[in-house]
Amino acid sequence: MRDLGLRYVRIGEFAWGRIEKAEGLFDWAWMDRAIDVLGAAGLKVVLGTPTATPPKWLCEKYPDILPVDIQTGQVRGFGSRRHYDFSSETYLVQAERITAAMAQRYGSHPHVAGWQTDNELCCHDTTMSVSPAALEKFRAYCAQRYGTIAALNAAWGNVFWSMEYDHFDQIDLPFFTVCETNPAHRLAYRRFASEQVVRFHDVMISAIRRHAAPHQWVTHNIIPPATTGVDNAALTRDLDFVSYDNYPLGFSDQLMAKASADEWKPFMRTGHPDLAALNFDSVRGLSKGAWWVMEQQPGPVNWAPHNPRPAPGMVRHWTLQAFAHGAACVAYFRWRQVPFAQEQMHAGLRRPDDMPAAAWAEVEQAASEMQLLGDLSVVAAKSPVAIVIDPVSGWVDDIERQGAGYRYDAVVFQYYRALRGLGVDVDFVSAGDAQLAGYPLVIVPTMAVVDDAAFDALQASDGILLFGPRAGAKTDEFSMSEGLPPGRLRELVPVKVTSVETLRADCGGSIAYKGAEYESGRWRETIEVGGADIIATYEDGAPAAVQAGRSIYLATLTDDAFLTNLLVDLCAETDVQITPLPPTLRLRRRGELTFAFNLDSVSARAPAPAGAEFVIGGSDIEPYGIAVWR
Amino acid sequence: MRDLGLRYVRIGEFAWGRIEKAEGLFDWAWMDRAIDVLGAAGLKVVLGTPTATPPKWLCEKYPDILPVDIQTGQVRGFGSRRHYDFSSETYLVQAERITAAMAQRYGSHPHVAGWQTDNELCCHDTTMSVSPAALEKFRAYCAQRYGTIAALNAAWGNVFWSMEYDHFDQIDLPFFTVCETNPAHRLAYRRFASEQVVRFHDVMISAIRRHAAPHQWVTHNIIPPATTGVDNAALTRDLDFVSYDNYPLGFSDQLMAKASADEWKPFMRTGHPDLAALNFDSVRGLSKGAWWVMEQQPGPVNWAPHNPRPAPGMVRHWTLQAFAHGAACVAYFRWRQVPFAQEQMHAGLRRPDDMPAAAWAEVEQAASEMQLLGDLSVVAAKSPVAIVIDPVSGWVDDIERQGAGYRYDAVVFQYYRALRGLGVDVDFVSAGDAQLAGYPLVIVPTMAVVDDAAFDALQASDGILLFGPRAGAKTDEFSMSEGLPPGRLRELVPVKVTSVETLRADCGGSIAYKGAEYESGRWRETIEVGGADIIATYEDGAPAAVQAGRSIYLATLTDDAFLTNLLVDLCAETDVQITPLPPTLRLRRRGELTFAFNLDSVSARAPAPAGAEFVIGGSDIEPYGIAVWR
Amino acid sequence: MRDLGLRYVRIGEFAWGRIEKAEGLFDWAWMDRAIDVLGAAGLKVVLGTPTATPPKWLCEKYPDILPVDIQTGQVRGFGSRRHYDFSSETYLVQAERITAAMAQRYGSHPHVAGWQTDNELCCHDTTMSVSPAALEKFRAYCAQRYGTIAALNAAWGNVFWSMEYDHFDQIDLPFFTVCETNPAHRLAYRRFASEQVVRFHDVMISAIRRHAAPHQWVTHNIIPPATTGVDNAALTRDLDFVSYDNYPLGFSDQLMAKASADEWKPFMRTGHPDLAALNFDSVRGLSKGAWWVMEQQPGPVNWAPHNPRPAPGMVRHWTLQAFAHGAACVAYFRWRQVPFAQEQMHAGLRRPDDMPAAAWAEVEQAASEMQLLGDLSVVAAKSPVAIVIDPVSGWVDDIERQGAGYRYDAVVFQYYRALRGLGVDVDFVSAGDAQLAGYPLVIVPTMAVVDDAAFDALQASDGILLFGPRAGAKTDEFSMSEGLPPGRLRELVPVKVTSVETLRADCGGSIAYKGAEYESGRWRETIEVGGADIIATYEDGAPAAVQAGRSIYLATLTDDAFLTNLLVDLCAETDVQITPLPPTLRLRRRGELTFAFNLDSVSARAPAPAGAEFVIGGSDIEPYGIAVWR
Repeated sequence: MRDLGLRYVRIGEFAWGRIEKAEGLFDWAWMDRAIDVLGAAGLKVVLGTPTATPPKWLCEKYPDILPVDIQTGQVRGFGSRRHYDFSSETYLVQAERITAAMAQRYGSHPHVAGWQTDNELCCHDTTMSVSPAALEKFRAYCAQRYGTIAALNAAWGNVFWSMEYDHFDQIDLPFFTVCETNPAHRLAYRRFASEQVVRFHDVMISAIRRHAAPHQWVTHNIIPPATTGVDNAALTRDLDFVSYDNYPLGFSDQLMAKASADEWKPFMRTGHPDLAALNFDSVRGLSKGAWWVMEQQPGPVNWAPHNPRPAPGMVRHWTLQAFAHGAACVAYFRWRQVPFAQEQMHAGLRRPDDMPAAAWAEVEQAASEMQLLGDLSVVAAKSPVAIVIDPVSGWVDDIERQGAGYRYDAVVFQYYRALRGLGVDVDFVSAGDAQLAGYPLVIVPTMAVVDDAAFDALQASDGILLFGPRAGAKTDEFSMSEGLPPGRLRELVPVKVTSVETLRADCGGSIAYKGAEYESGRWRETIEVGGADIIATYEDGAPAAVQAGRSIYLATLTDDAFLTNLLVDLCAETDVQITPLPPTLRLRRRGELTFAFNLDSVSARAPAPAGAEFVIGGSDIEPYGIAVWR
Repeated sequence: MRDLGLRYVRIGEFAWGRIEKAEGLFDWAWMDRAIDVLGAAGLKVVLGTPTATPPKWLCEKYPDILPVDIQTGQVRGFGSRRHYDFSSETYLVQAERITAAMAQRYGSHPHVAGWQTDNELCCHDTTMSVSPAALEKFRAYCAQRYGTIAALNAAWGNVFWSMEYDHFDQIDLPFFTVCETNPAHRLAYRRFASEQVVRFHDVMISAIRRHAAPHQWVTHNIIPPATTGVDNAALTRDLDFVSYDNYPLGFSDQLMAKASADEWKPFMRTGHPDLAALNFDSVRGLSKGAWWVMEQQPGPVNWAPHNPRPAPGMVRHWTLQAFAHGAACVAYFRWRQVPFAQEQMHAGLRRPDDMPAAAWAEVEQAASEMQLLGDLSVVAAKSPVAIVIDPVSGWVDDIERQGAGYRYDAVVFQYYRALRGLGVDVDFVSAGDAQLAGYPLVIVPTMAVVDDAAFDALQASDGILLFGPRAGAKTDEFSMSEGLPPGRLRELVPVKVTSVETLRADCGGSIAYKGAEYESGRWRETIEVGGADIIATYEDGAPAAVQAGRSIYLATLTDDAFLTNLLVDLCAETDVQITPLPPTLRLRRRGELTFAFNLDSVSARAPAPAGAEFVIGGSDIEPYGIAVWR
Repeated sequence: MRDLGLRYVRIGEFAWGRIEKAEGLFDWAWMDRAIDVLGAAGLKVVLGTPTATPPKWLCEKYPDILPVDIQTGQVRGFGSRRHYDFSSETYLVQAERITAAMAQRYGSHPHVAGWQTDNELCCHDTTMSVSPAALEKFRAYCAQRYGTIAALNAAWGNVFWSMEYDHFDQIDLPFFTVCETNPAHRLAYRRFASEQVVRFHDVMISAIRRHAAPHQWVTHNIIPPATTGVDNAALTRDLDFVSYDNYPLGFSDQLMAKASADEWKPFMRTGHPDLAALNFDSVRGLSKGAWWVMEQQPGPVNWAPHNPRPAPGMVRHWTLQAFAHGAACVAYFRWRQVPFAQEQMHAGLRRPDDMPAAAWAEVEQAASEMQLLGDLSVVAAKSPVAIVIDPVSGWVDDIERQGAGYRYDAVVFQYYRALRGLGVDVDFVSAGDAQLAGYPLVIVPTMAVVDDAAFDALQASDGILLFGPRAGAKTDEFSMSEGLPPGRLRELVPVKVTSVETLRADCGGSIAYKGAEYESGRWRETIEVGGADIIATYEDGAPAAVQAGRSIYLATLTDDAFLTNLLVDLCAETDVQITPLPPTLRLRRRGELTFAFNLDSVSARAPAPAGAEFVIGGSDIEPYGIAVWR
């Protein structure tokens, strides 16, 4: 490992069964030895706490720790991983116990640089459960949130369909009903479920911190933030920094499952050109600074519907790309391909026969090239554009689909792609984050719920504000906003959404903008416009987008071409520099460095200014290659 | 409401929780006041009984009222609506109690014009349940229907696969078996389930009638009759008239979910041109005279996969269309869009901010145009063509699919569409209804089971009889008909179905009729022909349709072109006047009025005779417009 | 029956309810009479034991005999068939009791020629169950297989994800977990489930043999061998011969469900040209000699998504085809179409009205043509090509999908189709069968697990060995093979699979072979080649197929064209004679006879040598017809 250029090694993240063979019977010897060996070689250890895999003896003794499937009502048993319920007090005690024991043992170990809590929290749809523990805690959550049952009934609008409750113990989890439950009920449950994860995680962080030396940091390796059903900002708030597990090919195979062969084939070995970047930028936003890739895919994996090998150079490419987007470290998963159990088809840096795998040379190259990048303590400048995201609004969009063509994540991604295609760096900022000031352009693709903090942050911002449809559509308790959407956002842009229609993706209408026609589909709002300029209109001449002062309200989902052209104009207006790029070329700046990434199977020309000083590569970027310049 | 031209207001249909806060603790004050306010304004009140939404205290006290899902075996709990089991004696008692209490209070109220029982019975797949109550009652039903277990065994053919029972308590509900259960078992269960709904409903009607003044009528608002799994004729028999909830866009989005964009886009804002009419005519058939639209969609709804807004004019269009098809009243759902709970995205006549919504002016126009139509007490003349429908045959086709391309509803709809495209008015008549005499043309698209009443009605008819394939295929107990299909119908048309084949929809064969070729697919019968004329043949020359006296037997499903041409010929033979129409133009007569409906986005020419006196519009019908003439 | 030319009649296979009306209360009279009547007419009786349909009284008394659904955890109840659990000791006792009782009664009956055990074992996905009995027996199976829990933990690699057990009673069935269970766990369960079926069946065979006269043989009618999840070789080992139920249209409709209309329509009335043959050859391989068709489809059936009628002549065609592939008898299911219960739409030789059905004349013809074939005691010569199959490898491929485009059965079928298209006869040989010697060409399309017996058989073979990808990939306990795949097969072909990628079916790469390009997709292995000749290369020049001595290793799935061309070359190398055929013409030899089958709707030219002596037909084969020559 040392020879390859690695500096950190993560171990232990699923090892509960080997650490504690029966309740209270610990065996630390093997782990002591492993850490010693690694440390002696000059490697630093990241210790994973093993709470993602409670061993069988624990499940047998405390069966109430198991989660219950929200689709079937079936207990999700032992035999894979993540078989625990975030609402189980029993498990909280047990998980804290093993975490504290580990922290106690290694909290002052000189070779242990830091800690990874658990592993990929919420993976495999585990945020939600219909266990008895979840039911009991949800009732308590409601009592705590609403105070009185009358307040809850009022907040949820339970007068509708005679849904009023007399006391909190009448409330069920919102599943297994005849038709859809009250969206306010579901939103409360989603918030609750997210908070259960955060509560669990916070207890684990505390258990580590109680014993760990000050120099030992605590992180967690999240999966793509959009897929977990948890408030990632809350989840990661108490971490020293955030880590991310980067599997561009597997994630892209899932994302583009319905793409045509023509669309998919160019990217099946590189991943969608903007997907890893999306996650990198999202994680940097959560981390508020440097962050880690804790697991980088080094070859074909085992869990996607199709598992191609990366194109030659892509492991190096992804590694340097992570640094470009602000990473402090890129670790690979896994060191050696394991010849047994569930992941035996998941590639490693070494093959099962302990020979170097295909990625080896690329990692070697990346490790040496890192030296050329210079000081990486500066994460990145603030990007010129901020995209505001909000988990609660994502849950709202998910609960109230209204149109089959509307998905929170896809809406956000469309703006991101358009900006990246213009060569613009993007920051993701959580709604309510006070850091919006200073961004020339702030985009709010879809934010149904605008709470006080979010509103204040928007008001305190000083750039152009671009709102997509559905902004401010709902109150905090999932009612329609006072005085119609966008509710309080009307202070920023004087429109009133009087009606919404949703269309099939292939049956859209159009909008006209500066003399050209674009597609307007899937989600279309009819708006009444107060004192604002109409900047785009529907096919019947009705307003489709307006501008008032520094705020723009776009009332419909559109095609990529419209978004791109609108953003070109807004960048011009805000002096944000753009560099229109082909789909297979991407740019990213870090400090004084500019990185160019060629996703194409042929060479590309680096859009470097005359006189650029190349740190890596040159103006002719090889297939799947990279250039970095000052 | 009054100013808009409304005359009736329905209230109360989900209000149990507010009427009875705990068992026996009634609060009528708010409802008293509401009725007074409405009455004082000159509006008449339709009172909905609230049995579709038993409140939580009731579910808590009597958990055995809850239904059980036939797919999963899971109890369907509180939290939405329709969470009750039609077989629960407990619920029957409770539902009768609240209904009687309401009827007692308002049964002689001068402002209460009538009653709506429950709401959309059987919606959300609630006809069938696998509750303990359903099991117990099904066994009793079997004992009652068959008398002895030997008779049941014989009727079902249980000797097959050793399925014989020794006593009635051995019989299970026909779910959760290894492979398919006996179709006779399933048909018995479908009949039972339907009867449970009817029994429940009849008790509710009686509870109202016991207390209601003679001038107060009783109705029920059914959803599209084809989708409920209930015998609608039985369900509505004791009502004063039938009501229907008309959502053309939502229903069409579901119906045409697999249509191409080219097929769907022209109709996404109008609905399929024949779907609302199909339901109107079906409901008129059930109502045996005037009927109501109790809920007319006034804008985008919230529950279909895609929810477009209606094309401009369509709310007026649908309103007048309902009158053309015999409606006595069209009510809109809802008055004001509710800003909270499940239906907050369901449009109303007024927006959530209490301003008029888009439909407002159209309703105003329709209300005033109604005055031009004159006396609507004449519902309609008997139409020239009757289509005979039969719920039992629908269940048979559903239980024994045989070919994936055969669906009862689609078969009926194809004939209806062909007739409507010829400008012919159609009545739907229930199998066994003695009113078949007097129709020049009687069509039996698919009627697998021909019981005594149905046979007598067919014999008593005096027009041309057109039978589609599968006619008379089964006995009342789901065996093959004696002497092969069409069984007793052989007295009317001397054919014998010796074999059936089903084909993929895209792999059909052909039939030749009067020198032209048409598609014959999905369902094809081989027939032996006695003394009848062969009028169409398969590609191998075998008979595909025959005529004997006034009866025609068509042995295959065909394409639309064939059906149209056959119907053109039969109309000529029976002196039924046709007016071939483009897909976007439809006609309907009521009394001496003829209505023309333009579903197109461009103007259409009204097919009015020279000298027609226009009551509404003129010979040039505007886009989505209407013309009415004498 | 006699007049038609039938010789055997199967009866009784679902008759438990009529034989034993209550426990111990037998009624043999009706069966005695039936056998007497049949025998008196000169027909021989095949007696089916009725264990596929335990009667209701038995299920009521012993509810623990019912299986439990692996998808839902729901008990699979009475009301159809196959509602018993292979792990139930109670049922084993009961089933043995009824089987023995029947054998005792008819074991020396002169008209009873033989016995059919049960009926279509494992049909309707009944091999696997999550019953308490299955759980208990699986734990015992594990204890027996592994001896100690430490050995099981080691064998399965349970150290991964802390999956180690402390004792056998902690092991669950591998269902209802959060994500995928250990593949070794699943493979153990699949083996166990298969063995439960075999154990049950062996007990039934013994029960018959204990009482049956020596001249009475025992068979079982299997459904297509690929679909049962059971080791067919083990299941049929103790039978006198194997029978097969042949439904070419139903099976093809399922197989080609996603085919385009152009692909499907030519074969919708004939079945896929190679599917019945595949099953015939598979069953002959299991039977190690003559075999029976116990049920031949005589017209449209009732259970496929679409149920066309056979093309004219196809019932005769399938009958003679079965003899060409080595059948000793073809029986038809059923004699008379039953007018009630589940199968009333399943055609018979006679219609429900007891008139001859369409197949009658074809069966008559086939019966008389059989006489022309001469002595059928010679089953067939050894075919020139053997395809090696292995149920365990099929389970491995199913458990570890890795690429959505990889399916064991489809991989095997592709080789078979290519060979049949070259007019080559094929034998299927079970892995480990010592009979591989003497085959000029042995193909191993996919055999992940190579146990000692399989390896020895391969080594003892003397022809060319062609291995497809995934050969030798796994150990017996589902780990990656020692020293990388193909593990011990490296002794035969010196390659090392260093990486695997799987691709979407429509996004493949290519291979070059003898100067031409072919598709390489879905599954592609990177191989290191020792001392072998590279015979095909990927698009990047890397080796895709190698030959070493008599062994060839093909590292990728390919298109049909490549397989065909490779096989043409290998046949030339091994002096196997080929006759390239159009898709609608097939050949098969038996003894000195050559059969040609025309699947086309137009005539075809028989590829008979000059001077061939035609036994049936001539050189011009009619549509759907047959020619046989010496």
